[in-house]
Amino acid sequence: MSDIPLKPTYGQYLELDRILSSQHPVSDATGKPAHDELLFIIIHQAYELWFKQIIHDLGSVLDMFDRNFVDERNIGIAVSRLHRIVEIEKLMIEQIKVLETMTPLDFLDFRNLLTGASGFQSMQFRIVENRLGLRPDQRLKYAQRDYHAEYSSRERETVLATEQGPSLFDVIERWLERTPFLATSSFNFVDAYLKAFGRMVATQRAELDALSGLTDEEKSVRRKMSEHTEAYVRSILDERSYNELREKGAVRLSWRAYLAALFINLYRDQPILHLPFQLLSVVLEIDEYLNLWRYRHSLMVLRMIGARMGTGGSSGHDYLKQTVEQHRIFSDLFNLSTLLIPRSELPELPAELARDLGFCFTFRA
Amino acid sequence: MSDIPLKPTYGQYLELDRILSSQHPVSDATGKPAHDELLFIIIHQAYELWFKQIIHDLGSVLDMFDRNFVDERNIGIAVSRLHRIVEIEKLMIEQIKVLETMTPLDFLDFRNLLTGASGFQSMQFRIVENRLGLRPDQRLKYAQRDYHAEYSSRERETVLATEQGPSLFDVIERWLERTPFLATSSFNFVDAYLKAFGRMVATQRAELDALSGLTDEEKSVRRKMSEHTEAYVRSILDERSYNELREKGAVRLSWRAYLAALFINLYRDQPILHLPFQLLSVVLEIDEYLNLWRYRHSLMVLRMIGARMGTGGSSGHDYLKQTVEQHRIFSDLFNLSTLLIPRSELPELPAELARDLGFCFTFRA
Amino acid sequence: MSDIPLKPTYGQYLELDRILSSQHPVSDATGKPAHDELLFIIIHQAYELWFKQIIHDLGSVLDMFDRNFVDERNIGIAVSRLHRIVEIEKLMIEQIKVLETMTPLDFLDFRNLLTGASGFQSMQFRIVENRLGLRPDQRLKYAQRDYHAEYSSRERETVLATEQGPSLFDVIERWLERTPFLATSSFNFVDAYLKAFGRMVATQRAELDALSGLTDEEKSVRRKMSEHTEAYVRSILDERSYNELREKGAVRLSWRAYLAALFINLYRDQPILHLPFQLLSVVLEIDEYLNLWRYRHSLMVLRMIGARMGTGGSSGHDYLKQTVEQHRIFSDLFNLSTLLIPRSELPELPAELARDLGFCFTFRA
Amino acid sequence: MSDIPLKPTYGQYLELDRILSSQHPVSDATGKPAHDELLFIIIHQAYELWFKQIIHDLGSVLDMFDRNFVDERNIGIAVSRLHRIVEIEKLMIEQIKVLETMTPLDFLDFRNLLTGASGFQSMQFRIVENRLGLRPDQRLKYAQRDYHAEYSSRERETVLATEQGPSLFDVIERWLERTPFLATSSFNFVDAYLKAFGRMVATQRAELDALSGLTDEEKSVRRKMSEHTEAYVRSILDERSYNELREKGAVRLSWRAYLAALFINLYRDQPILHLPFQLLSVVLEIDEYLNLWRYRHSLMVLRMIGARMGTGGSSGHDYLKQTVEQHRIFSDLFNLSTLLIPRSELPELPAELARDLGFCFTFRA
Repeated sequence: MSDIPLKPTYGQYLELDRILSSQHPVSDATGKPAHDELLFIIIHQAYELWFKQIIHDLGSVLDMFDRNFVDERNIGIAVSRLHRIVEIEKLMIEQIKVLETMTPLDFLDFRNLLTGASGFQSMQFRIVENRLGLRPDQRLKYAQRDYHAEYSSRERETVLATEQGPSLFDVIERWLERTPFLATSSFNFVDAYLKAFGRMVATQRAELDALSGLTDEEKSVRRKMSEHTEAYVRSILDERSYNELREKGAVRLSWRAYLAALFINLYRDQPILHLPFQLLSVVLEIDEYLNLWRYRHSLMVLRMIGARMGTGGSSGHDYLKQTVEQHRIFSDLFNLSTLLIPRSELPELPAELARDLGFCFTFRA
Repeated sequence: MSDIPLKPTYGQYLELDRILSSQHPVSDATGKPAHDELLFIIIHQAYELWFKQIIHDLGSVLDMFDRNFVDERNIGIAVSRLHRIVEIEKLMIEQIKVLETMTPLDFLDFRNLLTGASGFQSMQFRIVENRLGLRPDQRLKYAQRDYHAEYSSRERETVLATEQGPSLFDVIERWLERTPFLATSSFNFVDAYLKAFGRMVATQRAELDALSGLTDEEKSVRRKMSEHTEAYVRSILDERSYNELREKGAVRLSWRAYLAALFINLYRDQPILHLPFQLLSVVLEIDEYLNLWRYRHSLMVLRMIGARMGTGGSSGHDYLKQTVEQHRIFSDLFNLSTLLIPRSELPELPAELARDLGFCFTFRA
Repeated sequence: MSDIPLKPTYGQYLELDRILSSQHPVSDATGKPAHDELLFIIIHQAYELWFKQIIHDLGSVLDMFDRNFVDERNIGIAVSRLHRIVEIEKLMIEQIKVLETMTPLDFLDFRNLLTGASGFQSMQFRIVENRLGLRPDQRLKYAQRDYHAEYSSRERETVLATEQGPSLFDVIERWLERTPFLATSSFNFVDAYLKAFGRMVATQRAELDALSGLTDEEKSVRRKMSEHTEAYVRSILDERSYNELREKGAVRLSWRAYLAALFINLYRDQPILHLPFQLLSVVLEIDEYLNLWRYRHSLMVLRMIGARMGTGGSSGHDYLKQTVEQHRIFSDLFNLSTLLIPRSELPELPAELARDLGFCFTFRA
Repeated sequence: MSDIPLKPTYGQYLELDRILSSQHPVSDATGKPAHDELLFIIIHQAYELWFKQIIHDLGSVLDMFDRNFVDERNIGIAVSRLHRIVEIEKLMIEQIKVLETMTPLDFLDFRNLLTGASGFQSMQFRIVENRLGLRPDQRLKYAQRDYHAEYSSRERETVLATEQGPSLFDVIERWLERTPFLATSSFNFVDAYLKAFGRMVATQRAELDALSGLTDEEKSVRRKMSEHTEAYVRSILDERSYNELREKGAVRLSWRAYLAALFINLYRDQPILHLPFQLLSVVLEIDEYLNLWRYRHSLMVLRMIGARMGTGGSSGHDYLKQTVEQHRIFSDLFNLSTLLIPRSELPELPAELARDLGFCFTFRA
């Protein structure tokens, strides 16, 4: 008896008696079973299973980082687990192709029976958003209602707790803030960067002036674009103006965290920065693929129900389309590209810092 | 000698001497070769090869349809060839993942050398858009300039010719207009549809009123949505109000074509409507995947160059993001879903029409 | 109260309380929870959900066909549902990428706890195989044991019932056997085909003889290959020698069904053969993607556990690799390509047959 | 004038005049143009472009490693570039779906015109195989002929040079051989591993004996499998018996390299081993996806031409299917999984070695 939990069969281990008996199409009860309703149930159950896995992996990463001391070993593990989330997101996007084998007319066979149910009610999806770092005030409301309005009080409590953090955004920001290197006795990153940036801009302007084949007007347009970019970059590198941008919501990371992210992106060829760079990259990918999923989802809803109300009474497509942009979390990491400067123009690191950034132990006999 | 053109070797057949010697990174000439520039060249060349294939398949379909008489055999072939375009679009989307293995910093190693070149200049892509049916007045301008401003006069002529049509939109519209069935001596589709639609709406309202568990306010919101949808549907089914919508740009197909598309979508289970339904579906998929590609592309550009100017001096992300929605061509087919009614509510076809819609020859001994 | 089953919330509808509480990693009980075990459970649950959907769609198609009279309308529906199975198979293949984010070492953290459970025990997968048409005697045994040896008697009964058919293979074969057209008063398909085939071979031989640039030995090799193909084709077209091949297991379809499949493939441009051709194509795709999934799965197992025993005590990779080829079901449809002849060489259909194969009702005003 | 090479337009930069004018279907010359031949040409041209990119990325990695001293910075770059090859391989697999939109009958419209051309002739693909490390004696011959029999003498020279190496296999082997850590004054990896392995096996046997629910015969089968695995593992860990296996071709890496690969796999959680582990993983992935491509390709050829001769007179499917297994290069890395032991059983590293394997500089203030 006590043997069973340790050596279960395949079916017992996967609890298939429960998993495979949890599909009850409501159209069956009406006497007009809609063949495709099972697909609709199963695909959403599969999504919810994947959400559970995302929450599991994400939670483990938050636990690791939510301590004052991040064991370096953990960064590698964190990268792997976050990378898994990206792979799950890619699968979620592919999964839409299966749903699209149901045509709008097939959906209509049972759609009106589901007026009480809507994907907006998915508690796990809200938890994923919260734990990634979606800010409550950033969240698009549907029909002026809080997203948790329909939850039971126990559910509401569970979901709201995840609004309190820590989120992936929070822990990444704190971890970035602890990055050393940004200023040592012999090196000030901000100064060095601005000098290099200034040189680069000057060269580009000179090249532009020398360029034949453009009209004066065209050159003037390009010069204005260049000046606009320069002003933006300089305002980012200045703590006071950065904080003004931040108050307006144009940036979200703290200044120190932003600078660290920039530093890591610029000097990512340094061995010790490989993993930190991978970490920032995978975080950005999570955001990008969630974004793609939202967009793909909104297109599918448009195709499936047109401008009609969604199940649950919502006009789904518009809501979904708006969340695509508005629910983005790591915009700062996307925008960072604006501040990059070519390797050939990078300020050189002082010798002792470069040494610290190499492995102290080289990988050879 | 005369044998060679007919029995070429693999390399001769594919003209690999030309294909594989047409990559000349400009960074090589600067003395600082950028490793990733080859990828940038090759991926764009691959895109252009696929554009050529799309133009070839699309062109053959336009030729078939651009006659007063469409041989029924051709519809099957058209569906296959348009389906191939969908598969190519899916590949184009996957291809972005390869480009994303180049990081923004790697791109910077050669980006400034490319200020004269921009994807906006792709002539073949413009031709694809035109032949699908993008209207010249619908096209988003970049920096107030015509998209063909930089073309040579010969190129401009080639591209502008494709603006004259016929486009896929044109031929699909004309083919739809020729659909029979919409009115026979004993059947008027518009009347039958509106009767069925009215019954469906009445039932839904009654159900809504009887629904417990909703507040009065919530019921009122839903009723308004329902009324809104009803008004929209009725304005579509009325030729005069439809044409007013059409003048405002809210719909694009002619009224008759729109009705035919609706009829085909509703009665697609009829054997003779299988292929017509597949044709409408694949046209819609072409639009959907082009849309996805545009969106994916805009995200990639954001990640790659941030808010900076694109190659060619454009601020690419914003432009691309706007084209995602604005350059959609077959919106009418997407919106059709709003007008569908469940099979169980479909007006029955009169016997003689149903017989015509079956195969006269049944597929059995 | 009675309202609930009809207007359930999202969570009620999807029975999420059961679905999301059915994951109990055995490593948790050991006091050394293995982080990745949840993934292992969830991915297999997702597979089982998809198997359930495949069984649902497949079953509905078998029901349609398992009558003496197949309503032509159903062929379109059958094609759609079988196409959905293909899309699910593609997803199943993509899903492997998620499992591969678990490394072999991570798997070892809990692998030894699962010695009683093995994917070989999946009842639903066996049902899928049986209902597609895997013959009991074709099935590879693992360790000399029947695949259902470990099932409970109730389970065994359920699975063995699906061995009795009808399977997709059976119904497709019977449907093909009912194809008309193969012989009318004025047309004998076998004769017409063999004449055309003979002409094609004669031309090819003459071209080969005239070819410069090949040595005599090379020509002789090619001639032998051509003769070999010819002998094969002729033995297929002869009922007696076909049946000898069939007894040896080299072909599986009945002769009449094989001929019908060939006819449909050759004359698929005829409007009335469009859907039948799509049906044969999608059946073949189901087999192809199942095959790919098996292969991908076997590679993944190799990477994950090497030559070790699988969970459940099996040496998984070898077994899986062998099933890839041995469990193929519709080989006949793959091999059909050998018998195709170019459109330009196709025997012309007599006028009255061609007319029957066109729609009697042409799709235009 | 001199401005042009530096500021080319899009079309000039991509040399589109050459790229887009290099498609000349041979069926056009026969007066019976086959619509799908353009697809056949373009898809193969796209493959060749991607082969060029693979050769470029692979070459740069070989250059980096082909020095006695591997700069640690390069490992990160090598991982990125090899990862790009994996992404290209995935795309190559997707690309097959586009080719499959051409049916066997469509292919027949021009297949006979291509008897001189065959994919076997692709020079670049042979170079890819050689540079990955396919051994000349491992290569499957087709029709007893050397693969380069049909090359011009200049081509043959180019290809054969890549047989001389260095290949990816060679440089990875040499790099592994230089791994330190395997033996220090206080730690002998082989001894420590064998002790841990012995303990693990003893525990498993005891568990097996105590297991209720298995018959004696079943236990005996499992014990034999376990003994078999143990004998295999012990023969691998012994230099003399390993070298005997190697002479028989059962393993390929040198013993020292094999041990290093095992060490890296077991201790990959150590920060300094993260990148080395990623390197081994990506190398294995390159092999796995090439394998998948070969398999997918062989299936597609089966479907397209059945058992007929391929273009170029070969019976393609059989040849391709055999290469799937026989042309695998990094089998040793796949088989390594057999030797892994769970983290909980891993021999602990002596303190000073563990310290060396951590970063000397921890990533926090």
